[in-house]
Amino acid sequence: MLSQSPAVDRVFHALGDPTRRAILEKLSEGPISVSTLAGPMEITLAAVVQHIQVLEKSGLVHTEKAGRVRTCRMEPQGLGIIERWIGDRRSLWERRLDRLGDILAEEDGK
Amino acid sequence: MLSQSPAVDRVFHALGDPTRRAILEKLSEGPISVSTLAGPMEITLAAVVQHIQVLEKSGLVHTEKAGRVRTCRMEPQGLGIIERWIGDRRSLWERRLDRLGDILAEEDGK
Repeated sequence: MLSQSPAVDRVFHALGDPTRRAILEKLSEGPISVSTLAGPMEITLAAVVQHIQVLEKSGLVHTEKAGRVRTCRMEPQGLGIIERWIGDRRSLWERRLDRLGDILAEEDGK
Repeated sequence: MLSQSPAVDRVFHALGDPTRRAILEKLSEGPISVSTLAGPMEITLAAVVQHIQVLEKSGLVHTEKAGRVRTCRMEPQGLGIIERWIGDRRSLWERRLDRLGDILAEEDGK
């Protein structure tokens, strides 16, 4: 009964890591280069690059190289995948509450 | 520059695991007992219980024991934590786009 969407898996896996969420928090302020992003972080540049690759594969980040500088920017569409997943959970749950409400109203009417 | 909210950390960590997302998908259809939940899963009951505990600590699930049966239900408030985090990322990003739009409009006006 594992959750079946690879896209949903990738986004939740990417955001399950606090360093990757911190990267996305920074990128939501605007695009920056990989080296500027890595500057204040207490991990190696290679580790930062790996985190960025995970974020890029999940569709949360886009990177582009101009000369020797690679710039990262947030892709808000990636967040939409999680928003839809949450919305689906909520709507199923609320529909169930509505049905319970209907049953209670019927019981009252008897 | 790690992301600082322990509540956000707990919810994203909880949902970073596909088994835990599958449990929440099942619970969004309605409350069920731990043993009914574990039935179709290809992991031990002890592993299922551990996953449920992680979900409970993150505020995504509530469990209650009546006699010998422990029932789990989804807590939609837990999902709100992630929705707010995503909303904050989006609004920062959109505000930046608005500022860029203003700058371009000013340039056009010159």
